[in-house]
Amino acid sequence: MTGHPTTAPVTDRTVHDAANAQALARLVEARPVLETVAPAGRVVPGMTARTILVSGPPMPWERYEGGQRRAVIGAALYEGLARNEAEAEALLADGTIAVRPSHDHATVGSLTGVCTASMPVAVVRDEASGRRAFCRMNEGPDRASLTFGVWDDGVGARLRHVCDVVSPALAEVLDHLGGIPLGPLIRRALAMGDDLHSRHRAAGAMFRTTVLNAVLDMSRSGVAEHHRALAAYLSSAEYLFLHFVMAASKAAADSASGITGSTLVTAMNLNEKEFGLRVSGLGDRWFTAPLPPVSTLRGRLYDGWTTDDLAYVGGESLITETVGLGGMAAAAAMPLQDHSAGTPQEMIRLTERMYRITLAEHPEYRIPSLAYRGVPCGIDVIRVAETGIVPAIHLGATLRDGGHAGAVLFLPPQAPFQEAARLLTAPSPATTTDTPARPGDPL
Amino acid sequence: MTGHPTTAPVTDRTVHDAANAQALARLVEARPVLETVAPAGRVVPGMTARTILVSGPPMPWERYEGGQRRAVIGAALYEGLARNEAEAEALLADGTIAVRPSHDHATVGSLTGVCTASMPVAVVRDEASGRRAFCRMNEGPDRASLTFGVWDDGVGARLRHVCDVVSPALAEVLDHLGGIPLGPLIRRALAMGDDLHSRHRAAGAMFRTTVLNAVLDMSRSGVAEHHRALAAYLSSAEYLFLHFVMAASKAAADSASGITGSTLVTAMNLNEKEFGLRVSGLGDRWFTAPLPPVSTLRGRLYDGWTTDDLAYVGGESLITETVGLGGMAAAAAMPLQDHSAGTPQEMIRLTERMYRITLAEHPEYRIPSLAYRGVPCGIDVIRVAETGIVPAIHLGATLRDGGHAGAVLFLPPQAPFQEAARLLTAPSPATTTDTPARPGDPL
Repeated sequence: MTGHPTTAPVTDRTVHDAANAQALARLVEARPVLETVAPAGRVVPGMTARTILVSGPPMPWERYEGGQRRAVIGAALYEGLARNEAEAEALLADGTIAVRPSHDHATVGSLTGVCTASMPVAVVRDEASGRRAFCRMNEGPDRASLTFGVWDDGVGARLRHVCDVVSPALAEVLDHLGGIPLGPLIRRALAMGDDLHSRHRAAGAMFRTTVLNAVLDMSRSGVAEHHRALAAYLSSAEYLFLHFVMAASKAAADSASGITGSTLVTAMNLNEKEFGLRVSGLGDRWFTAPLPPVSTLRGRLYDGWTTDDLAYVGGESLITETVGLGGMAAAAAMPLQDHSAGTPQEMIRLTERMYRITLAEHPEYRIPSLAYRGVPCGIDVIRVAETGIVPAIHLGATLRDGGHAGAVLFLPPQAPFQEAARLLTAPSPATTTDTPARPGDPL
Repeated sequence: MTGHPTTAPVTDRTVHDAANAQALARLVEARPVLETVAPAGRVVPGMTARTILVSGPPMPWERYEGGQRRAVIGAALYEGLARNEAEAEALLADGTIAVRPSHDHATVGSLTGVCTASMPVAVVRDEASGRRAFCRMNEGPDRASLTFGVWDDGVGARLRHVCDVVSPALAEVLDHLGGIPLGPLIRRALAMGDDLHSRHRAAGAMFRTTVLNAVLDMSRSGVAEHHRALAAYLSSAEYLFLHFVMAASKAAADSASGITGSTLVTAMNLNEKEFGLRVSGLGDRWFTAPLPPVSTLRGRLYDGWTTDDLAYVGGESLITETVGLGGMAAAAAMPLQDHSAGTPQEMIRLTERMYRITLAEHPEYRIPSLAYRGVPCGIDVIRVAETGIVPAIHLGATLRDGGHAGAVLFLPPQAPFQEAARLLTAPSPATTTDTPARPGDPL
């Protein structure tokens, strides 16, 4: 465990209930809109020219040794912060280049989650709370990418293309459209076999249609080359929409954060070594535990690879489960059965189990195969501690030497949920009375 | 019943088995490609300037009195075959304008199914058999249309737009692409909540993306106005893709037709009065029975309408069920539950029941919620007769005075299946021995 609780623990369940009602309302009333795409350095709060964001709970730089370390060094070279690997290592070791946890910058990143100042991020604004959250643009369909812990000239060239060509074109389109509301796309995609973490085929097709129509609308005097490049990117980047959903989820989860007494999970993530979570009523503190061995993961891997070939490289995409999507919505995504619970019946049971650890059903995001029941949303650390059921997560899998290996069902360790629940329910030495804590701002 | 059996009945079940194996192979090995869109008069075999195609088993013109009659008269006026309704009535009565069953022209049409020489049809070629089949282009999203038994100036203007602007633009795109294979789109759409009869949301999104990308590719020196119109049409015509699937299904079903001894259903349709079907081993003969009262239909109707407001206007879209899509694949299309069997469990049971009356599971068209079991395909009249289970059909619903009213689950009468089964199994006075009939051409 790292850090300290930032609010006094409370024991009165009615306090939890009132606080959770607030947190939930903010979570489910979020109205995420993809506003624009812009370089992180220009829009992400606290971002500097020498900042490199990474996924996961904070961890000292010297502990990174796998794909996430390779990606950070690659990002430093890509950004021109060092001339070679040795120099990058030195500047990272002495803190000249700052490796920072994404969440502290309202940002989430897929797997390694590396992001530097020049890299374009999706800017998603929650119209309900006014909050913004950010997620780096998808690198495209190549299995080798910074996201999956690979750095080489090809990765650099593809990053540059997304930065210089694709993102400005998408920004123009978003400007023309006045943004694209993501909630309706998520809602429809859940009725079309997407879980919105590991599968985005329907959301991607609908998003592409919207953008391509806009491109045509903007192209009366000829289609610009960068718009043509945008169309090509849209057609190939299978996980394009994941990055928008991640930013949308982060904005919603952040709006539910910081409510005293709330037992609702507001972030889940991982770095190379640890799983971490945050709870609304416990501020910015990370509750962490070591990751389960990759050999215990089950899923679908490409090209005959086995779990022996895998390694963790971090990940923030678990923010989708935090709001009720991904593995929580497994029953909506039957095409993922071989990546996840195995059979249609088990996909249904998996989501049904998730209702036992969540506080509500989302009023908009619904699952046709469960007679349009809302996705299980608002993970409650007390319920996880009481039932022993942990959130089910649809995670991308990475090869030990980097690269996209497939997708797995990830079950996080129970300890961080238990520890957070203990802090929120047991009288603590620091508080001698069980006076209810002051609730957060009313909606 | 109309017509006569064109082949001798057979009684040897092994003859049925061999014949059905051939029919099935042709049905499931079809590789439909949308080749082009062209005026019916130019591509549909046997089409003349004074032909009007209609849905359903053949019926004398004087028996038409509802939406299908309105649509035929509307089509005559649209085509300029008469100056007014009275003249159209006279020319129809004396046969100067010929009302012809679509199937005799390798064509299928949604609901009323009217089609005249100038109207554009989708041309779908089955690459396996070389056969072509045709379906008139969708009229767009308006609930008032010839398809739904409405004729007025607005209907005429929309038909003209699809004819003069949208269809030539789509033909250009298809020419540029060398056609669009429909099989892969159908396969993917079944994993995205489409039944491919009443729901085409995923197929439509994927089709749009393909076409819009091609439009961009063709538009280096500026986007032509008719391409822009095509994009607008693609974005609004929800049932656009239905018409392509119908032509694809007709091509597949026709390739399975005419195999002596086969008990496989090769067409199902309806006119205003009767349901009809054809069987592979019984040639072109229609087996018919009166339609069940509209009051017995169950489904989802718009705007508070009830089944009392409905009327039959014919329909050929049942050709999708004939090849295993639509109601047969209900378990793939959970979002249709309120149009169809009511609950997710009943959608699964409905498709499971269909396996009892079909001869095979399609090798490519699969259902994720049934662990990727192939859709039930190859309806066997003997199995229908033996079990009393009839094919489940996802049918569009039409208001009595015309217009789109919603969608219903349609269960056809059993008599035509029983009659066809009887002819295929009972020794007939016409044949004194049970010598197996000569099988059809080998594949």
